[in-house]
Amino acid sequence: MATEPDFHMSPAELRRRGHEVVDWVADYLQRLETFPVRARVAPGEVRAGLAEHPPERGEPFEAVLADLEQVILPGITHWQHPSFFAYFNANSSGPAILGELLSAGLGVQGMLWSTSPACTELETLVLDWMVELLDLPRAFHSSGPGGGVIQDSASSATLCALLAARERASCWTAHRDGSPSDVVVYGSTQTHSSLEKAVRVAGIGTARLRLVGTDASLAMDPAALRAAIEADLAAGLRPCCAVATIGTTSTTAVDPVRAIGEICAEYGLWLHVDAAHGGTAALLPALRWTHDGLELADSYCFNPHKWMFVNFDCDCFWVRDRAALVRTLSVLPEYLRNAATESGRVIDYRDWQVPLGRRFRALKLWLVLRHYGAEGLRAHVAEHLRLAAWLEAEIAAHPDFELAAHRTMNLVCFRLRGDDERNQALMDRLNDSGELFLTHTRVDGRLVLRMCLGGVNMRQRHVERAWEVISQEATRA
Amino acid sequence: MATEPDFHMSPAELRRRGHEVVDWVADYLQRLETFPVRARVAPGEVRAGLAEHPPERGEPFEAVLADLEQVILPGITHWQHPSFFAYFNANSSGPAILGELLSAGLGVQGMLWSTSPACTELETLVLDWMVELLDLPRAFHSSGPGGGVIQDSASSATLCALLAARERASCWTAHRDGSPSDVVVYGSTQTHSSLEKAVRVAGIGTARLRLVGTDASLAMDPAALRAAIEADLAAGLRPCCAVATIGTTSTTAVDPVRAIGEICAEYGLWLHVDAAHGGTAALLPALRWTHDGLELADSYCFNPHKWMFVNFDCDCFWVRDRAALVRTLSVLPEYLRNAATESGRVIDYRDWQVPLGRRFRALKLWLVLRHYGAEGLRAHVAEHLRLAAWLEAEIAAHPDFELAAHRTMNLVCFRLRGDDERNQALMDRLNDSGELFLTHTRVDGRLVLRMCLGGVNMRQRHVERAWEVISQEATRA
Repeated sequence: MATEPDFHMSPAELRRRGHEVVDWVADYLQRLETFPVRARVAPGEVRAGLAEHPPERGEPFEAVLADLEQVILPGITHWQHPSFFAYFNANSSGPAILGELLSAGLGVQGMLWSTSPACTELETLVLDWMVELLDLPRAFHSSGPGGGVIQDSASSATLCALLAARERASCWTAHRDGSPSDVVVYGSTQTHSSLEKAVRVAGIGTARLRLVGTDASLAMDPAALRAAIEADLAAGLRPCCAVATIGTTSTTAVDPVRAIGEICAEYGLWLHVDAAHGGTAALLPALRWTHDGLELADSYCFNPHKWMFVNFDCDCFWVRDRAALVRTLSVLPEYLRNAATESGRVIDYRDWQVPLGRRFRALKLWLVLRHYGAEGLRAHVAEHLRLAAWLEAEIAAHPDFELAAHRTMNLVCFRLRGDDERNQALMDRLNDSGELFLTHTRVDGRLVLRMCLGGVNMRQRHVERAWEVISQEATRA
Repeated sequence: MATEPDFHMSPAELRRRGHEVVDWVADYLQRLETFPVRARVAPGEVRAGLAEHPPERGEPFEAVLADLEQVILPGITHWQHPSFFAYFNANSSGPAILGELLSAGLGVQGMLWSTSPACTELETLVLDWMVELLDLPRAFHSSGPGGGVIQDSASSATLCALLAARERASCWTAHRDGSPSDVVVYGSTQTHSSLEKAVRVAGIGTARLRLVGTDASLAMDPAALRAAIEADLAAGLRPCCAVATIGTTSTTAVDPVRAIGEICAEYGLWLHVDAAHGGTAALLPALRWTHDGLELADSYCFNPHKWMFVNFDCDCFWVRDRAALVRTLSVLPEYLRNAATESGRVIDYRDWQVPLGRRFRALKLWLVLRHYGAEGLRAHVAEHLRLAAWLEAEIAAHPDFELAAHRTMNLVCFRLRGDDERNQALMDRLNDSGELFLTHTRVDGRLVLRMCLGGVNMRQRHVERAWEVISQEATRA
């Protein structure tokens, strides 16, 4: 036979280059504050700095690192920057990075239990750990008929919940006959846009999505939910699913899960609870009130990849009846049949999600939980809440500013007294400064600035400095 | 203020631990052959070896590495083992691992161009590179109205294609009114199960999924497709979408894309081409015949995370009309509004996929392409084809074996002469031996063994040894 080609990177080279990349990452984290938080490039600028055509010959690793430094970095908005206050945080952390590295190194597929039993069993275990840490209903623990799974995002978790709700409401015929034309889905005006996307994807259609009103705190009004359900019933429609949110994206409002759950139980709706950002708050007993009534939910999700120091993607999704989820999503072709699956003694997570393949994401959550311990996670979350309270008090005491929404956790919503233009101009100047990055929402039609205080690298001095810059800039507005 | 807590891993500790983990991964790759390919644990065994409750206090990193070694590893089916011939490969490689590490270290969210311009622009660029490398239709290049995006899996790509097809067939009303009850979707009996899953998810229902017949090579029969479309039209239904496959999961059959595409054009169907595994073959001009007619497709996907040395997840998905995809999937809430999006000059990839969030997956594809160069990738793919041809010839020449399906690329399907029980027993003994791992399918109702020769660590000697073991075991059957 001919000589075998060998263009692969040897383990020895991986070791050497791996040390270099680890050093690069550690250096990056150490010099984060030297970068403007938000990228300053114009559209097309990054691409223009890179080779327009693929290389015919392999290139030395140094060339890649040089491009990373000179072309990619200026095009990065630094989500791990301690002065990143925009959107919700999407944290990474040392143990999470190491978990992702191990996952890539092992390179296993966890689609079936049998394709790597440890991938499935560790995932079930850490999801059970989270049931304890957040004090979630025992029904979500895998020892009963429920259980948890890691999804890529809360959008996907919400879609899976909606699909199972649709199947249940159609007496398990929707997978065959299509989405019934009469099922109706409920959220509030503050529900995340992923619900609208899921309603579209699932073939239900936004004409049968009701976004009901909220109270003064922007939490869903249960009376409005009941009225909407009654109206739909009167119209001969079939209420199917409601989504309650613990920590809305706009202002971290907390929907009254208990009241909503009681209505869902009364009318037979599937209740999905989206705590993508806010779930982490339940690490603290003092914040457990946000989860009151969760035992009435059929499903629940939260994202450790937001506020709990696990890098994206890691959404934890639980159902109280895993059979309903599997019945909704399972398709078993011959080439995936195996003895373990047919024994019924194992979980095949491919049946708990839309994609077939899945990587070993439990590792990074496991590493984070073991590195920090419950104590460490609680301490940092409590500190973020303390800093948010401090910032809130500063804003409340300042004559030129006003608080713009009820604060429930680590998001502070505020505005300059005056019109939207003044607030937009302030935000643009702040973000252009490179010193910090925050984003906006609208409350009662008015432009409002949002500051989320949940960054893994954020310390007290960054919050103090941010407020100093904001209040100084305001005098120029 | 009180002393700030600090349970985080410092950059200095990340550097030290990162070197240890890189060494662990390099060592793992060096000792891969010391492990049985398929895990030998019983259900529950991995979990039983781990702490049942989450730690209250953080633990030293050594404790995690010890569990990894002693409890996790025995529960791993080693997908990177050179004698892993099961399913399709899900390769990792040095540059891919380093790309994943960089992505985790940077920790950016690429949901919008503005949330990290480099994440979006590098992705568009490497997808354009792949258009060149696979000689895909120019319509998929981002310089025109089409373009590419990275999805997590071909399942998700197929779902997105189906959703766009459904919207187009409904004159852009399905997102509002729900899936029309009369749209029909077409595949073949050999189409991947993800199409059935997508048809369920999209609310179309499997009652309107037609899996048409195939020819002797298990490729879709265009005449059967036409007949099915005609029958549905006669029944007053609305043919909407067809999926052709380049390299079916069962036997890597190649559907005649040109003939199918001409029928789709005639009847106005969206043609999606799923080349999840087989797309990589088009790196070689000699295998480009597999893609003949692709200029007739509306969308196409292939998975570098299978046969092109990029770790999961990395599915490349292209559409010839990106406006159709965006129109299908875009929902824009206030908190995501930004000047760049409103300028219309940038791509926001959140509108090209179901989830909102997305990590910087282009990095690993970019690193792989730059490390190997086109030359390196072609050389390894050619070598896999050479080894598959060698194995095929050995099997054909052996009196006790027979080839069981037409070979198009790097998958060899064969069986022992005799009944299914004999083949099942042979497969079980082989997989129990730990020396290799292969899986099965059914062809014409008979059990068939599949060997996929695409592993990043597989060399000639592993294929030779596998055949030696298989032919020896066969004498015991």
